[in-house]
Amino acid sequence: MRKHIFNAGPCKLSDPLLKNTSEAILDLDGIGQSILEVSHRSKEFQAVMDETIDLMKEVLSIPEGYSVLFLGGGASMQFAMIPYNFLKSKAFYLNTGTWSAKAIKEAKLWGELVEVSSEDKNFTYIPKGYDVPKDVDYVHITTNNTIRGTEIFEDYDFGGLPLIADMSSDFLSRPVDVSKYAMIYGGAQKNLGPAGVTFVIIRDDLLEKVVADRKIPTMLQYKTHMDKDSMFNTPPVVPVFAAMKTLEWYKDNGGVDAMYKTNLEKASLLYEEIDRNKLFVPNVKDEADRSIMNVTFVMDENYKELESDFLAYATERGMIGIKGHRSVGGFRASIYNAMPLSGVQALVDVMKSFETQN
Amino acid sequence: MRKHIFNAGPCKLSDPLLKNTSEAILDLDGIGQSILEVSHRSKEFQAVMDETIDLMKEVLSIPEGYSVLFLGGGASMQFAMIPYNFLKSKAFYLNTGTWSAKAIKEAKLWGELVEVSSEDKNFTYIPKGYDVPKDVDYVHITTNNTIRGTEIFEDYDFGGLPLIADMSSDFLSRPVDVSKYAMIYGGAQKNLGPAGVTFVIIRDDLLEKVVADRKIPTMLQYKTHMDKDSMFNTPPVVPVFAAMKTLEWYKDNGGVDAMYKTNLEKASLLYEEIDRNKLFVPNVKDEADRSIMNVTFVMDENYKELESDFLAYATERGMIGIKGHRSVGGFRASIYNAMPLSGVQALVDVMKSFETQN
Repeated sequence: MRKHIFNAGPCKLSDPLLKNTSEAILDLDGIGQSILEVSHRSKEFQAVMDETIDLMKEVLSIPEGYSVLFLGGGASMQFAMIPYNFLKSKAFYLNTGTWSAKAIKEAKLWGELVEVSSEDKNFTYIPKGYDVPKDVDYVHITTNNTIRGTEIFEDYDFGGLPLIADMSSDFLSRPVDVSKYAMIYGGAQKNLGPAGVTFVIIRDDLLEKVVADRKIPTMLQYKTHMDKDSMFNTPPVVPVFAAMKTLEWYKDNGGVDAMYKTNLEKASLLYEEIDRNKLFVPNVKDEADRSIMNVTFVMDENYKELESDFLAYATERGMIGIKGHRSVGGFRASIYNAMPLSGVQALVDVMKSFETQN
Repeated sequence: MRKHIFNAGPCKLSDPLLKNTSEAILDLDGIGQSILEVSHRSKEFQAVMDETIDLMKEVLSIPEGYSVLFLGGGASMQFAMIPYNFLKSKAFYLNTGTWSAKAIKEAKLWGELVEVSSEDKNFTYIPKGYDVPKDVDYVHITTNNTIRGTEIFEDYDFGGLPLIADMSSDFLSRPVDVSKYAMIYGGAQKNLGPAGVTFVIIRDDLLEKVVADRKIPTMLQYKTHMDKDSMFNTPPVVPVFAAMKTLEWYKDNGGVDAMYKTNLEKASLLYEEIDRNKLFVPNVKDEADRSIMNVTFVMDENYKELESDFLAYATERGMIGIKGHRSVGGFRASIYNAMPLSGVQALVDVMKSFETQN
């Protein structure tokens, strides 16, 4: 039986994607070779890479002057590459949780940081009304906190300073004005495809900001990958193929606008139940900061002893991956694009029936 | 129709691997989730990673005191990581071709190099009888030249100096005495699995050689990945799964010894035909240096004009990927483990029948 998969990533993917990828592993479009076997220099794979890049540009309405890259190493490698390439003396980092903190750690190797943080309240809100110094090399934000469940919905503008955003877990979940960003990046394993490929959308003129007198390994230079259209070395072929299939599915199903509409419905349904149900309490109080991708909640303090019971109860009914991150406890339902409204409804039903019994 | 795939990598894979991976993408062992969807922190994927590491140790007879890692970024990222971590002042690099040269380029960022090269004869032989200075931090070799078709079959010993080998294209093709190496690494996309994962076998005490006063990004430190058993960040899940299935297949089919036996037969069959056939000339004259993975040859100078005819002739008969690397020309048949003797025989038959017609 197909379960309701609320994993935080790798996560639920669409059935057409699974079917298409499974078939391509046996034979890619009837060419007598598996997608696992085709040379990355073949016309067949070049067509996959070109199409994936074109679909990214189309689905996200990426303006002229940006490059789309597909690399290995995950967002964690980007945490290292960004300051290695662009941090000359000082950068601004918005610290909204665990992943921001990891990016900050890497940046500190290369320069001075100015930080604004929501750690004072366990990262359960998005900081607002702060000033960013005019002399920083760039501003770094993490748009979605996968662990605590906050999200930045606004496309910020800090007076023209290069804005770099880790969108690992809310990428493609809602429309974004790409022109406001110098760079957007993330691991694919939420709304783009399976683990093993990292996307980077980079404004070409950002290369002018590369620190001139620093020795940067070839693989860690953005220029390397931009010059070779992500084919400097063998790319992760299957994850790129799966990303292409995901983007095709988005395009054929109303694009990011349609995803956003459904995501809002899904998140509303679940947050309303959390707010209503006497057993549960949301981690994020301010509705404006609540992630529509990762919905986190804990037991009400009067029902703390029911936590493991609810987990078992929900698991028996086909819910997978709703245990909260080990650093937070409680519950987390990750409701990425491929999660249908019916899956969220199934979880809500389980929350209601568990309440009735307790 | 399934073709005869002689691609240099990504390359031919075994039918059971394709079948098992295709099935796991629909449903992993009947758990109601795709291998693309399972959390990398789930017990299901942890079991995959553990089993893959155990199989590597078993199939290659890796002794105690070594760690097996599965990382992203390809061998090219290792070209950067090795000197970044271990090159304090001076290293020895054996330059046997394009990939060695790329590794050398990255190493030069960090220290002085002593090089011995076979470039004087277009990398068509393996240098021998040279001296390695006693005071180098490590020795780096590339055991197989995928482009020109040479191979180092000996497990070198340079008086106890740490020996680091890029075995991207001959890994698992023959038995190796791992105890002679401080580190063995490579991209998986030849004999281990599909593109998107890089294997590293590293002797644990090599960490003592990490350059102490150098700032190394977290993702570029071997220690990071050794401490977390390759799970510091999300690993490339499907490529690791496919690697596990490949290793299972080796184990069930006589292991590396059996692969080696068949590989020798395949290579002999093809080289004998090249030596015999009036139309063709081998690139590598010294039989001892001929790669058993990448067999390269060109048209005899009396038949130069038939080059494109032969390519078309062979392609029509189901041969894929036999065009030589663009930097060499001619032909290259990559005959990795998954290529059966019958595939090589099919190519030999085509060479014979083409000779008869010309």
